[in-house]
Amino acid sequence: MNSIFEEHPHKRYNPLTDSWVLVSPHRAKRPWQGQVEKVAGDDRPAYDETCYLCPTNTRMNGEVNPDYQDVYIFNNDFAALLEDTPPHSFEEDELFRAETERGLGRVICFSPRHDLTVPEMEETAIRKVVDAWVDEYLTLGGKDFINYVQIFENKGFVMGCSNPHPHGQIWASSSIPDEPMKKQIAQLKYWQKNQRSLLADYLGKELIKQERVLFENEHFVALVPYWAVWPFETMIVPKRKMARISDMTDAEKDAFANAYKRLTVRYDNLFETSFPYSAGVHQAPTDGEAHDEWHWHFVFYPPLLRSATVKKFMVGYEMLANPQRDITAEKSAAVLRALSETHYKL
Amino acid sequence: MNSIFEEHPHKRYNPLTDSWVLVSPHRAKRPWQGQVEKVAGDDRPAYDETCYLCPTNTRMNGEVNPDYQDVYIFNNDFAALLEDTPPHSFEEDELFRAETERGLGRVICFSPRHDLTVPEMEETAIRKVVDAWVDEYLTLGGKDFINYVQIFENKGFVMGCSNPHPHGQIWASSSIPDEPMKKQIAQLKYWQKNQRSLLADYLGKELIKQERVLFENEHFVALVPYWAVWPFETMIVPKRKMARISDMTDAEKDAFANAYKRLTVRYDNLFETSFPYSAGVHQAPTDGEAHDEWHWHFVFYPPLLRSATVKKFMVGYEMLANPQRDITAEKSAAVLRALSETHYKL
Ligand SMILES: O=P(O)(O)O[C@H]1O[C@H](CO)[C@@H](O)[C@H](O)[C@H]1O
Ligand SMILES: O=P(O)(O)O[C@H]1O[C@H](CO)[C@@H](O)[C@H](O)[C@H]1O
Repeated sequence: MNSIFEEHPHKRYNPLTDSWVLVSPHRAKRPWQGQVEKVAGDDRPAYDETCYLCPTNTRMNGEVNPDYQDVYIFNNDFAALLEDTPPHSFEEDELFRAETERGLGRVICFSPRHDLTVPEMEETAIRKVVDAWVDEYLTLGGKDFINYVQIFENKGFVMGCSNPHPHGQIWASSSIPDEPMKKQIAQLKYWQKNQRSLLADYLGKELIKQERVLFENEHFVALVPYWAVWPFETMIVPKRKMARISDMTDAEKDAFANAYKRLTVRYDNLFETSFPYSAGVHQAPTDGEAHDEWHWHFVFYPPLLRSATVKKFMVGYEMLANPQRDITAEKSAAVLRALSETHYKL
Repeated sequence: MNSIFEEHPHKRYNPLTDSWVLVSPHRAKRPWQGQVEKVAGDDRPAYDETCYLCPTNTRMNGEVNPDYQDVYIFNNDFAALLEDTPPHSFEEDELFRAETERGLGRVICFSPRHDLTVPEMEETAIRKVVDAWVDEYLTLGGKDFINYVQIFENKGFVMGCSNPHPHGQIWASSSIPDEPMKKQIAQLKYWQKNQRSLLADYLGKELIKQERVLFENEHFVALVPYWAVWPFETMIVPKRKMARISDMTDAEKDAFANAYKRLTVRYDNLFETSFPYSAGVHQAPTDGEAHDEWHWHFVFYPPLLRSATVKKFMVGYEMLANPQRDITAEKSAAVLRALSETHYKL
C-alpha cells in the first residue's frame, strides 16, 4: 500500500459497483460523545417460549412451528413482497413511473437453539444452512415470476433485527434489485472486455499482495475489499468462478461453511461481543440466462467502528453526498487478521 | 394515486437519481420487537459548560469560542477532508484505483442557545443560518481546488450527531460526490432533451395533483417526493429554477427560512419529540460551469417510522439489494399535512 494513502484523505474506486468511497485515515482519533449502542443480552436461554422462531411455538398468524432439529424455513408472515400482486405498470411521463412488483419473502431459522449464532454453531450445522440456501435459490429462482433471489441476514438489534433467534431471510423478486444490477453491469463489461472474471482477477492480485487477505481455505478467500465502506466490511469469495451458489460441489459447500464460521468467530472476538452485521449473497439472477460474467460472493456489512457500543453512522454526508470511512481497509484487515479463530466465549 | 399502488407492493422511479425504491404498503402492520431508540433529553440548559460548541467554551484543540450572538462558523477540528492533502493518483489497473482528495470541513453553530433547534428558533435567526450558508458556498466554492460544497445537518443522536447543540456541517471537496453527481447527470439529460428544468416540471405537476404537497409559500413548496425512501422524507423546492442558493433574492431567503421552520415544526409535532434527520442542500457544483440544468433543493432524510423510538432500518435487503419503504409517500404526506404548524411545546 502506497504510504500517501495510509495517511491522507483519498477516494478509492469500487470496480464491482462502479462507485467511489471517501477514506479519511487521519480521522480515527476523533472523540465520540454521540450515541452508544446497547449490547444485546448474551445470556439467552436455549429455548424461549415467547420467541416466534423457536420450535413448537405459535406464530402471530396462528401457525405452529414444528419441533425442527436443524434448519426451518417458512414464508415470512409480514413479507414485503407477495406472490399474488397483480401486474400493473404506470408511466404518466418520465417523472411519474411505477410498476407493481411480484415476489415472496422467506424466513430461515439457522438452528432450533435460541441461544446460538453462526460463529457458535458447528460447521456441520452451518453446512445445513448452506444447503437450505441452495435449495431455496433453485426453488424460488425456478418460478417464472422470480428473476432475483436475495439471501441475507440482519444480525443484532443495531441492524434492525427484530428477534435474536439465529435466522436469515430471503426476498425474491421479479425485478433485479439495484445493487446486484450494478454488479452485473460491471462484471459483464469486464467479462466482455477481458474474457475473464472480474473477481477472479481481483482475487489473484489480492492473494499476491496479501495486505487485505484474512485467511483462505481450499476453495474460498476471506478479505477486506480494497473499496470497503463499512469499518470492518469483508467478503468471502470462491476461488473458482461460479455464477451461483448452486454451482458449488459438496467440498465447496463444506469449505464455505468453514470460512463463514472462521470469519464470524473473528468478528465476535474483535470487540468480544456478538458482532452485528447485515450479510448475504450476491449472485446471478434467475432470469434464465447463463450469466457467465457472474462470480458469486458473500458480503458482510458490519456497523461497529470502535467498540461493542460505538458504530459508524452512515448519515449526513454519506446519505447526501458519498460513503466515507475513517480507517483504511488495510488497517481493518490487519486487525481482523491478528484475531484468534477460537471464539472468546470458549 | 392509482389505488393498485395504494395497496400492492410496487417500485417507483426516482428521475433525479435514476434509481428505484420498493414500496410495500401492506407491511405497515408488522409487529416490532426490535431496537427501541433512546429519546434525547429535551431539558437542555441554554448554556452548557461541557459543550464544545457553546459560546466562550474551549474546544479540544485549545481554541476558545467567541461569545457569539447568532451564527458561529469554524473549521472542523476533526475534518474528514483537509486543505493540505498532496495530490496523488494511483491506478494499477482497472481494479485498483485511488486518488487523494483535497477539501475542507466547516462547522456552523446555528445559535448560541444550547437548548434550541431549528423548529424552535425565530425565522429571523434561521435567516442568518441561510445567509451563512450562502457566504460559505461562495467562499469555499470560490477556492480553485473546491468543486462541490455539501451543506448538511445531522440532527439527533440516532443520526450520529455527537452534540445536541444546534449545528450543521459543510464538507467541501475537489470531487463532485456520488449523490449530487447522479442528480446532475439526470437534470442535464432532462434539460438537454426538454429545455426545461426537471424539478420545475415536477413541481408544476405536484402542485396540480396536491397529493404529496405539504404546504407552499410565495417562493417554496414543501412536499414528500413521489420517490421518497425514508418514511417521512421531504424536499423543499424553490418555485423558480435557481442553480444555487446564492441565486436567492432577499425575499427568497426569508421565504426559505419560513418553509424550513414550518416543516421542522411539523416534524417535531409528528411524534411530539425533537425529530431526528439528516438534511441538506443539493445544488450546482462550484467547478466554474454555469450549470443551467441545476435546480437546487433541500432534502430531509428522517429515520423515524412509527414513534419517537422506532425507526426504519435501512439494513439487510436495503443494503444488499434495494431501498424499501413500508408506507406510501401519499400516506406520509397526508399525515404531515394534517399536523399543526405551532410547536407542540408552546
Ligand atoms: O462529523 P461528526 O458530527 O463528528 O460525525 C457525524 O457526521 C459525519 C458526516 O455525516 C459522519 O461521517 C459520522 O459518521 C457522524 O458520526
Ligand atoms: O423483516 P424484518 O426482520 O422484520 O425487518 C428488518 O429487515 C428488513 C430487510 O432488511 C428491513 O426492511 C427492516 O427495516 C428491518 O427491520
